[in-house]
Amino acid sequence: MIIKELAGLKDGSNISNLFGWVDNVRDHGGLTFIDLRDFDSTIQLVFDKESSIKVGVKNEFYIMVSGVFSKRDESLVNNKTSYGQYEIVINSLEIVNESKTLPFQIEDNIDTDESIRLKYRYLDLRRNEMKNNIVARSKTFKSIRNIMNKLDVLEIDTPTLIKSTPEGAKDFLVPSRKSPGSFYALPQSPQMYKQLFMMSGFPNYYQIAKCYRDEDSRKDRQPEFTQLDIEFSNGNPAVVKNNIEIIVKHIFDEAFDIKIDTPFNTMTYEESISLYGTDKPDLRIKETISDISALFQNTDIKFIKDTLEKSGKVLSLHTKDTLSRKNIDSLDDSVKLIGSNGLGWFKIDNKEITGPLAKFLNPEEKSELSLFGDGLIVFQAGELNEIPKYMDLLRREIFSSNNDSMISFTWVEDFPYFETEDGILQPSHHPFTAPKNPDDFEINPKDSTALHYDLVLNGVELGSGSQRINDPQVQKLVLEKWGLTKEDIDERFGWFIEALSYGTPQHAGFAIGIDRLVAEILKQPSIRDVIPFPKTQSGMDPLTDAPSLINENDLAEYNLRYIEDEQ
Amino acid sequence: MIIKELAGLKDGSNISNLFGWVDNVRDHGGLTFIDLRDFDSTIQLVFDKESSIKVGVKNEFYIMVSGVFSKRDESLVNNKTSYGQYEIVINSLEIVNESKTLPFQIEDNIDTDESIRLKYRYLDLRRNEMKNNIVARSKTFKSIRNIMNKLDVLEIDTPTLIKSTPEGAKDFLVPSRKSPGSFYALPQSPQMYKQLFMMSGFPNYYQIAKCYRDEDSRKDRQPEFTQLDIEFSNGNPAVVKNNIEIIVKHIFDEAFDIKIDTPFNTMTYEESISLYGTDKPDLRIKETISDISALFQNTDIKFIKDTLEKSGKVLSLHTKDTLSRKNIDSLDDSVKLIGSNGLGWFKIDNKEITGPLAKFLNPEEKSELSLFGDGLIVFQAGELNEIPKYMDLLRREIFSSNNDSMISFTWVEDFPYFETEDGILQPSHHPFTAPKNPDDFEINPKDSTALHYDLVLNGVELGSGSQRINDPQVQKLVLEKWGLTKEDIDERFGWFIEALSYGTPQHAGFAIGIDRLVAEILKQPSIRDVIPFPKTQSGMDPLTDAPSLINENDLAEYNLRYIEDEQ
Repeated sequence: MIIKELAGLKDGSNISNLFGWVDNVRDHGGLTFIDLRDFDSTIQLVFDKESSIKVGVKNEFYIMVSGVFSKRDESLVNNKTSYGQYEIVINSLEIVNESKTLPFQIEDNIDTDESIRLKYRYLDLRRNEMKNNIVARSKTFKSIRNIMNKLDVLEIDTPTLIKSTPEGAKDFLVPSRKSPGSFYALPQSPQMYKQLFMMSGFPNYYQIAKCYRDEDSRKDRQPEFTQLDIEFSNGNPAVVKNNIEIIVKHIFDEAFDIKIDTPFNTMTYEESISLYGTDKPDLRIKETISDISALFQNTDIKFIKDTLEKSGKVLSLHTKDTLSRKNIDSLDDSVKLIGSNGLGWFKIDNKEITGPLAKFLNPEEKSELSLFGDGLIVFQAGELNEIPKYMDLLRREIFSSNNDSMISFTWVEDFPYFETEDGILQPSHHPFTAPKNPDDFEINPKDSTALHYDLVLNGVELGSGSQRINDPQVQKLVLEKWGLTKEDIDERFGWFIEALSYGTPQHAGFAIGIDRLVAEILKQPSIRDVIPFPKTQSGMDPLTDAPSLINENDLAEYNLRYIEDEQ
Repeated sequence: MIIKELAGLKDGSNISNLFGWVDNVRDHGGLTFIDLRDFDSTIQLVFDKESSIKVGVKNEFYIMVSGVFSKRDESLVNNKTSYGQYEIVINSLEIVNESKTLPFQIEDNIDTDESIRLKYRYLDLRRNEMKNNIVARSKTFKSIRNIMNKLDVLEIDTPTLIKSTPEGAKDFLVPSRKSPGSFYALPQSPQMYKQLFMMSGFPNYYQIAKCYRDEDSRKDRQPEFTQLDIEFSNGNPAVVKNNIEIIVKHIFDEAFDIKIDTPFNTMTYEESISLYGTDKPDLRIKETISDISALFQNTDIKFIKDTLEKSGKVLSLHTKDTLSRKNIDSLDDSVKLIGSNGLGWFKIDNKEITGPLAKFLNPEEKSELSLFGDGLIVFQAGELNEIPKYMDLLRREIFSSNNDSMISFTWVEDFPYFETEDGILQPSHHPFTAPKNPDDFEINPKDSTALHYDLVLNGVELGSGSQRINDPQVQKLVLEKWGLTKEDIDERFGWFIEALSYGTPQHAGFAIGIDRLVAEILKQPSIRDVIPFPKTQSGMDPLTDAPSLINENDLAEYNLRYIEDEQ
């Protein structure tokens, strides 16, 4: 039996074959006390040192005991645990399995290095805080399945050994033994297959899918991650957003007992950039960015004058707190780290303006600046494709949220269709997204908008979705405007354009990153903390030592050979 | 709107923006009729050829219509479809998307080559019989999740980029770009990770998991397949079997509306082999194999005499049907194909025994054989590690079940721990299975029994499970007896033995092949018919043309090079 099966037993009941881990052992006045722990509960065991029970159990031994369920003395009741009113006076103890000396203690708030915790992940997961994370993950799965059933969305699975696709990040490849030289790819997402389900006539689809991206791991990412993937036939952004709000509201309620309000706030990409400097705005912070360019139209401050002449802008934030010089220097360091020339600032104190640039201000500027009121104005001058990200950082550093318990959702929509990365045009999301206006798109793809919408929680992008292209001609157009050759289009997307050519309904969908969602709700520092067996930043598993070397003979079965780096 | 939203509308209601596919178009006396089809239903559209509605729609065009919901004339009611009493007199028709000419018709019982159906799988899935298969698959997922929730089993996911494991079939490998020369493997099953969950203190676990085996594809197998994977802490075979019966009963009931009886029949591996010649007995056939060796103790038939002297056996089946000579020849061909020297047989007709060997029978043999009664006795003489498989084939061919609608489950248990394959000792299942008696195992591993149990439905192995080893010493012992060197054990299993060394509870589990389960219940010829986007026998996807060639530069990123076969 396990501890929770003791519930309802009477004082004096005989207990037999109760299993659990030794959480700790204490000797005290001729008696030995053991805290017995299992998944749900703990209970105290006690026996006389002189009894026939063999001692010598240590922490994490898995044992089986029998004895008598006994009310503890009023004065000894432990109200911190569920069975704290009781103990078991044991008359037999059997060791099921011993434990070696532990590499770290099974308790919360340990400061053990993460690589050690990952190497012994099975012990790490015995700790309450980690166990609770994984249970929350499991509850999230369960709540998703429940709401999907309520919404009558079909769970269908998609293949994971697929043809290489082009979604920006890199594919993991899987060599085929049967067709040497040929490779499958692991899916970056089930995108094309969920669209195929819509072409196949299914009304909707969902799946909790493993997705794979072989990308550099500076950010908190994993080579494999888990997403709730969803698609609606005859769908459009309004249908999808409404359903996602129902789903997210349900997950928060059922899995986390948190009530949230819907509908969520919605803003355009442009609004988000101009007010928050980012397309992932943290709305727990109320302060927004101001464009104070107009204030400097006759300025004597040279770098501002130059900026404005080159159609640049001056963006600012105002805080009522007067930050210390140390704080200001630290903000200066932060923005420089991501590419800014440095922080501009003015301190306003009773209409008096100070700061390194104050002496260059003309009287008009002074009077307009003083209207902001006492406090600090920080600003950045530069081009609009550069400075918003500095303003985003400043906003988050200055107003670092003390609203940690707040939940603040927003939709961001009307993204630009393309973005330019290192001078090359790339779809901001993926090339299956429908342009908002296909005619405009054809004429001016670079300034065209996509029917794409992101869901942002507390400054974190939780998920992404779009209306998809359902017209094979538009699909071809998008790939052409992206810059693909006819041959590329045929080779990589020919089969997909063909599939669109047999009466494809309008369809739209969404995907939510489950690792990120759970980590964000539980305020965990990394998604690794909510994944049972994650990889390190460099894609290694310290537990099993994967990935591992493969010998030449095994490789030869795939007609592959390892080549040393050339010097 | 979609067709099912018409439910409950009154005759004469206005309908607008109804979507669907053109199932067919018929012209008839100045009127055009269109059957409009969607996921659930069809309804007839009708309009006057002289109306302003543009014609020229063809099968599988996706259209949007508006019109009036109208009761059909009594005489024209079509009772075969759900909306057969109604039609829509349309006043507008808009083509959402055209369709190219179809490679095959969207209807049941087509005889199109499977490779064409797979190339256009999105059209194949529009056909009712295929759509129903996929819906049944989805219902199976749903019913699994429901019963798992009822049983309070936690859904937790396991990594799929893992260290190469040794489960008999071959791993798919995934080269790592970040650690050139190193590879992940795709899991053949989540076996070691589900055991790690038990070591981590979780009470149970389930997952509908994708598993991968790079094995030759003579059988009806897929490189990736889907299994219900489950494990119970403090579990043992009785606990697991009981839970699996509850689960399977629930799936049959909820997803397929089929009531089945539990508990299932149980037999040992030995019984199964001796009565049915196989460890996957089809119990819909009542006839069993007899050992008639004793009958021939004084025989003059030389090959039987020789066989018995070498401790061989004579196994027989008796059928009351007297098969035609053509049938007998065909059985002879069948057993020869799998290695037998040929079929032995006697015909019994009113105590008269005929057949090619009849003239060599002594009177005693004749009189004993005639006790079987009129009909045919077929037999095989030879060693017990050879002839049962011939008897299995004969049994299935002679008594080929006409009980197709029957559902016949059995457990088969007490498997031998090891089997010999090409002279090499291999665990019959996997090396994490607990030996039934570890002490016996240590002394005589070759004749030792495993705590392993299979679930067989109608002669098909649906799933497998076992109690696992939870003692690191026993785990080491099994690997040693398997023949692994100390270095091999350390390198491949060291981390797992270490993980077992911190107080591991007893645990046991099971896995059910979902593709196989659904195919068997739906009586589909292949698991490909219940998988949305399957691969062919040779692991190809005719739709996307995966796997595909990767160019040298891309390969070089993994420090890999393709090598031509040497002559």
